[in-house]
Amino acid sequence: MLDLPRPYLLFLGDISERGYAKTALGLRDWAPEHCIGEYNLPGGVSIGLPRLSPAQAKTAGARSIVIGVATPGGAIPDHWLPTLIEALEAGLDIVAGMHAKLNDMPALRSAASRLGRQLIDVRTPASNIPIGNGKKRSGKRLLTVGTDCALGKKYTALALTRAFIARGVRADFRASGQTGIMIAGGGMAMDAVVADFAAGAAEMLSPENDSDHWDVIEGQGSLFHPAYAGVSLALLHGSQPDVIVLCHDPSRKTVLGFNDYKLPDLQEAIDLTLRLGARTNPHIRCAGVSMNTSALSQAEAQKLCAQTSAELALSVADPIRGGAMFDALVEACLA
Amino acid sequence: MLDLPRPYLLFLGDISERGYAKTALGLRDWAPEHCIGEYNLPGGVSIGLPRLSPAQAKTAGARSIVIGVATPGGAIPDHWLPTLIEALEAGLDIVAGMHAKLNDMPALRSAASRLGRQLIDVRTPASNIPIGNGKKRSGKRLLTVGTDCALGKKYTALALTRAFIARGVRADFRASGQTGIMIAGGGMAMDAVVADFAAGAAEMLSPENDSDHWDVIEGQGSLFHPAYAGVSLALLHGSQPDVIVLCHDPSRKTVLGFNDYKLPDLQEAIDLTLRLGARTNPHIRCAGVSMNTSALSQAEAQKLCAQTSAELALSVADPIRGGAMFDALVEACLA
Repeated sequence: MLDLPRPYLLFLGDISERGYAKTALGLRDWAPEHCIGEYNLPGGVSIGLPRLSPAQAKTAGARSIVIGVATPGGAIPDHWLPTLIEALEAGLDIVAGMHAKLNDMPALRSAASRLGRQLIDVRTPASNIPIGNGKKRSGKRLLTVGTDCALGKKYTALALTRAFIARGVRADFRASGQTGIMIAGGGMAMDAVVADFAAGAAEMLSPENDSDHWDVIEGQGSLFHPAYAGVSLALLHGSQPDVIVLCHDPSRKTVLGFNDYKLPDLQEAIDLTLRLGARTNPHIRCAGVSMNTSALSQAEAQKLCAQTSAELALSVADPIRGGAMFDALVEACLA
Repeated sequence: MLDLPRPYLLFLGDISERGYAKTALGLRDWAPEHCIGEYNLPGGVSIGLPRLSPAQAKTAGARSIVIGVATPGGAIPDHWLPTLIEALEAGLDIVAGMHAKLNDMPALRSAASRLGRQLIDVRTPASNIPIGNGKKRSGKRLLTVGTDCALGKKYTALALTRAFIARGVRADFRASGQTGIMIAGGGMAMDAVVADFAAGAAEMLSPENDSDHWDVIEGQGSLFHPAYAGVSLALLHGSQPDVIVLCHDPSRKTVLGFNDYKLPDLQEAIDLTLRLGARTNPHIRCAGVSMNTSALSQAEAQKLCAQTSAELALSVADPIRGGAMFDALVEACLA
């Protein structure tokens, strides 16, 4: 599996729109100890870290430069190449999770080869992924699942991992998407694996561990998603979770980008996930719901969580808001 | 999508074990009009077609030579290369569905490039597969699903297609695995598609069609398979079947190669498939069960099919045995 060279220098290019810097912001918030600084080009956004050139970052201990911004279309613009090559010359590897691959760019390849440096595309799957074997692994596992894409499965897994560790529970965040992989320093880009190996990739992502150790696994997609449900099922089967937490955004009524597809009812989503998940772990249970209440006021959020909790007879909380409700969700996971 | 050059010359190598010639036997049985002849090396099995050299086959109208045997391990032995290059020199393209890729063999690549011929690896997915869109397509679709791998989903789809056409119904067999693709002359090797594109690949496999036309789609894996359920779900969602036929082998009690996994109960398999399939086609229904009774006597087979039919209140038949029970299953599909 991937093992990314850390700490990082975060490269922001000349992207002026903060929304495109999600990867860099995620790294700053969830892996600050691994972020030495940031570097942008004229006109580029800052995320408030010390601005260091590649050479300065290397001196400060950085081992790689991470492309921390997305571009519309997913390409790496040609005018970024001099900076990226400067980073290679300074002794940094390059890490990226974009659709365009570093290894497909001849200028980068020849510089990396000349300098003996690595170009690491985190969305390029490992070459040694086995077919899933379905064998029960030791250790405890939690998987975040969702009623849709892009509504908080990564955030929830990170927040739960942090809360587990704060309670003295041994836990690792296991990343299944590119930003999560950079935060964790490793993982498996599930969406890029060949379909036949997807469950095997999920098995690899959370290997055997001590019986009191938790792997908190970042979910992908949704079992109700017309394009991505297969990935979600492979991840569910291969993860063998003991516990699931369902992630939901109440402001969303239909699948993002698929207006003909209503989001499922929460109880239905829990039932189907438990039914399918029981195939590889008969002891699977749902600990509760992670509610993304970013569109609501504090009072509305609290009311919705309390009401949903009563309806489902499960803990419901927004990890971003934290508080007693989130503590209860954490306890329910560990119960 | 793939469009294979036909008719074929079937290459059998020097494989002496008939069981390894499944692809050639499938082509002989299901696409005889596209098989000009066979060619084996000393010691190789025959499947009873005229033995033609590549040059003779070319003269007789062949457009490609198909590797019709599997090897233990999936490699193409070096001592087959002279014959394969001879075929390229005779003006034939080469078609293969093995794990080892024709395009990874330098000797074949240089010969094909020199001669302007194609090396077609049917398990290499198309490069233009879109993300699934979940939009309802016109035309009717049937998908064969299974309680496990390798128990008759391809055979059932082929037999139903043939029966539909015999009744004057317009129908196409849509292949999702390598042997099926060679039989159909095209299709989509679902297991080789990157997971994020699997539902999109399934959508591509059965495009919009006339409202009275049937696509009969070869299923893959099983929703209950610990390694391959994700592929099965993506194929189910992308196929949007109006009708499913469940394929089962009563002699099998556990998943092939996964002894800890019991095969599901038939009613449970039908229920789960309909529940999941309803996401992209709310009108999905199960027409019946295709029972692989190869391990039973005629009397036992008839009794089992009748009994299962009574239990499920659905048509149950073995397409290999045909007869009135299979006719009833065909009618139930078209009802």
